[in-house]
Amino acid sequence: MSYPAQGLKERFWGLVPNGDAVALRTLLERMPPQAAAEAFEELDEGNQAKLLKTLNSDDFERLLPHLPAPLADVILQHFPQSVQAEALEEMWDDDLADFLQEVSDEDRDRYINLLDEETKETAEELLRYPETVAGGRMTTAFARVRSEMTIAEAIAMLAEKKEETEILARIYVVDEQQRILGKLRLRDLTFNPATLRITDVMQPETVTIDAMDDQEEAANMMLKYDLMTLPVVDGEQRLLGVITHDDAMEILQEESTEDLERQSGISGHQEETDYLETPVFSHFRRRFLWVLGLALLAIVSGYVICSYESVLDGWFLLALYMPMVVAAGGNTGAQAATTVIRAMSLGEFEPREFLGAIWKELRIGLLMGLLLGGCVALLTPVVMMALPETSATGQVLKTSDLALIVACSLTAQVTTSTVLGAALPILARALKLDPAVVASPAITTVVDVTGLIIYFGLAKWILGI
Amino acid sequence: MSYPAQGLKERFWGLVPNGDAVALRTLLERMPPQAAAEAFEELDEGNQAKLLKTLNSDDFERLLPHLPAPLADVILQHFPQSVQAEALEEMWDDDLADFLQEVSDEDRDRYINLLDEETKETAEELLRYPETVAGGRMTTAFARVRSEMTIAEAIAMLAEKKEETEILARIYVVDEQQRILGKLRLRDLTFNPATLRITDVMQPETVTIDAMDDQEEAANMMLKYDLMTLPVVDGEQRLLGVITHDDAMEILQEESTEDLERQSGISGHQEETDYLETPVFSHFRRRFLWVLGLALLAIVSGYVICSYESVLDGWFLLALYMPMVVAAGGNTGAQAATTVIRAMSLGEFEPREFLGAIWKELRIGLLMGLLLGGCVALLTPVVMMALPETSATGQVLKTSDLALIVACSLTAQVTTSTVLGAALPILARALKLDPAVVASPAITTVVDVTGLIIYFGLAKWILGI
Repeated sequence: MSYPAQGLKERFWGLVPNGDAVALRTLLERMPPQAAAEAFEELDEGNQAKLLKTLNSDDFERLLPHLPAPLADVILQHFPQSVQAEALEEMWDDDLADFLQEVSDEDRDRYINLLDEETKETAEELLRYPETVAGGRMTTAFARVRSEMTIAEAIAMLAEKKEETEILARIYVVDEQQRILGKLRLRDLTFNPATLRITDVMQPETVTIDAMDDQEEAANMMLKYDLMTLPVVDGEQRLLGVITHDDAMEILQEESTEDLERQSGISGHQEETDYLETPVFSHFRRRFLWVLGLALLAIVSGYVICSYESVLDGWFLLALYMPMVVAAGGNTGAQAATTVIRAMSLGEFEPREFLGAIWKELRIGLLMGLLLGGCVALLTPVVMMALPETSATGQVLKTSDLALIVACSLTAQVTTSTVLGAALPILARALKLDPAVVASPAITTVVDVTGLIIYFGLAKWILGI
Repeated sequence: MSYPAQGLKERFWGLVPNGDAVALRTLLERMPPQAAAEAFEELDEGNQAKLLKTLNSDDFERLLPHLPAPLADVILQHFPQSVQAEALEEMWDDDLADFLQEVSDEDRDRYINLLDEETKETAEELLRYPETVAGGRMTTAFARVRSEMTIAEAIAMLAEKKEETEILARIYVVDEQQRILGKLRLRDLTFNPATLRITDVMQPETVTIDAMDDQEEAANMMLKYDLMTLPVVDGEQRLLGVITHDDAMEILQEESTEDLERQSGISGHQEETDYLETPVFSHFRRRFLWVLGLALLAIVSGYVICSYESVLDGWFLLALYMPMVVAAGGNTGAQAATTVIRAMSLGEFEPREFLGAIWKELRIGLLMGLLLGGCVALLTPVVMMALPETSATGQVLKTSDLALIVACSLTAQVTTSTVLGAALPILARALKLDPAVVASPAITTVVDVTGLIIYFGLAKWILGI
């Protein structure tokens, strides 16, 4: 009775070799469907095939919505068409739409043609919306009542439909054009006199989302307003469906994984499979493009160093702080980018406040740059003492000159990088691009170049070359 | 009736200068409490003070749980003690505990002493749990019934307690020792014959969490099992409280912000205030330590370059690819770290699978390194042609030698960095540290050093120096 999902999974795996259908079925039924799906997914193909022969379609039905679409597809194809149709019709409409969105075009058409008229219509309605908008995540299996009903009438109507309703805890009140008038909780029906009218117990609904708005906006609204369900409407405020709390959590998780990945130069969409089950080549495909692009950009840094050959030739000791100036830019630029991107995606500032954000980062960057430059300048005599071997060639570089050069260039580089780190994602957003595209790795590569130019430029100027 | 929260906020701000209490109150009541709180929070201090004089304590009561604790504190202190007590007693217990956790020790004691005995006891019970564990996020205001009750009895009991119950959609069944036996939905009471017993309609509960388990684990379980509420138990499976879906969303959001920030070298906890309202110095404090530490580490890279002075002196053209080899390591290391950290925090692999993860990253790294090295080697003749000015000093470096050096060192550097990027977070986790601490910026700085050593080491070997 504790949290036995892992334990149940291991017992399940222990039963697979025997192939005892009754024992397997009994155990599967005791597991939450998500855990049962996971237990099946983590078996090797041989054992999966074995189970498909041992168990029957009813045993798999509740697992299907929790399996990656390709695996659910394999399972379905194992059974006759009539069973496939039944299993699909048993799914909640949003799960069904997700599944259909993820299989091949050919399979989708085949599956849709198996469905009964009503399910087919709902599925086609939901498939009209891209996966990434509110309409693509909603369920139409929600509870709705009319405002002129009494509580008794509403309960009688809902009791009839309760089997096909995904969430009953929030009930919406609509007029005859299906426009949303208000909402109520199931408790408002259960604990009030049956003769009251719906209008007497409903609350006005002030938070809705348009079906074509981004799913991330929907999840952020549910987070902000502590909602269990969010009504999805069309342009005329007609209620089309609701997004439920579990979908909101999933959206938040997907979006934050995506944010993290973009900020490390990983492109495309995450696989449905877990990390260890995802093939090496899939990982490679999502990572290589950024790595190649950034490597080519880094040639610019190489050109810049080569163009300062005469300076380095004469004052080789300048190489000592070169990596630090470059790296400090990358680190502070990445910090600024992360902070600004996160604030934008949580809706913490509006487009008109962009200048305010940049002004804030300018002050943060200046403060960090001055302090960092000061610290490193003060440490320079110590750093010089610990130098592996004294530079033999070229001019002698005075410690005080090196300290001055590093202090000035760290200040300039950290300030520039912080401002660039904030400005580039903001610019990307203004251009309707994903701000995370210009996050850490891209900014690091850009400020590598600015760092080298600032460092060698200031060195030439201070040394009077 | 659309999504008018922003519009209502703006109308509210428009009303503030007039100070018309009735108009302000009417509008506030129409806004969701979160939007009302935000509208108040975003006013300047002068207008906040003005509103505190215009409106009365009832108007502020529903805003309090949605305001940052310091601001809620200011509002409360504006009213007499009896009003303060009433406002605190009106809060849900988890909101109250959050508030008390965030005010100063002195204020906390003072507020607790204002509370009636029952609220005081609940608050002290909840305050025993740190904010970051499941017990610190639970509410005790959940619905519980006994298995031997009939549905009619359960409904009658819940009807009495409905005002003080935060979530009624999920109801837990306990025995006389408060141990959890099962769960049911409100619909199971509403739509079933009133004479049935609770045992006939309840489901067994297989997913619970220990009060001292991490809040992130709780949120991940709610995400995985699509839960509206998660029961929190003690060591004897006694039901202490539940975590609700809105708290789960908040935890997911907080944890993903923290992951993002750690991976960009931002330490400590995010402010409760929005980005633009957070003072420059607060941002500075959370960012500077990493920047300073990484800058000092970058001196090692400087030493490494200085120690290869004779190589660079003789073959200065090697500087051309130095930034690329270094950067490719940082980029691929960061990708590996992000992927592995994310997979660990989503529970996608277990400690015993650590070697599997490193083996996977080794293959990904080798594949990327070989391909990247090959691409850059092939491009080398073109890159050399575009070189700003031909290297005048030192030895002539053959294009084929440079291509061979860069191909070998990119392969070695990308493979090393990818493996390090995966291994360091795993090692941190094994040492019970937050894996994100050794994420992108730390890894970048480490692989800067390995990159320089690999590049110059291979160059010396290939050129036979």
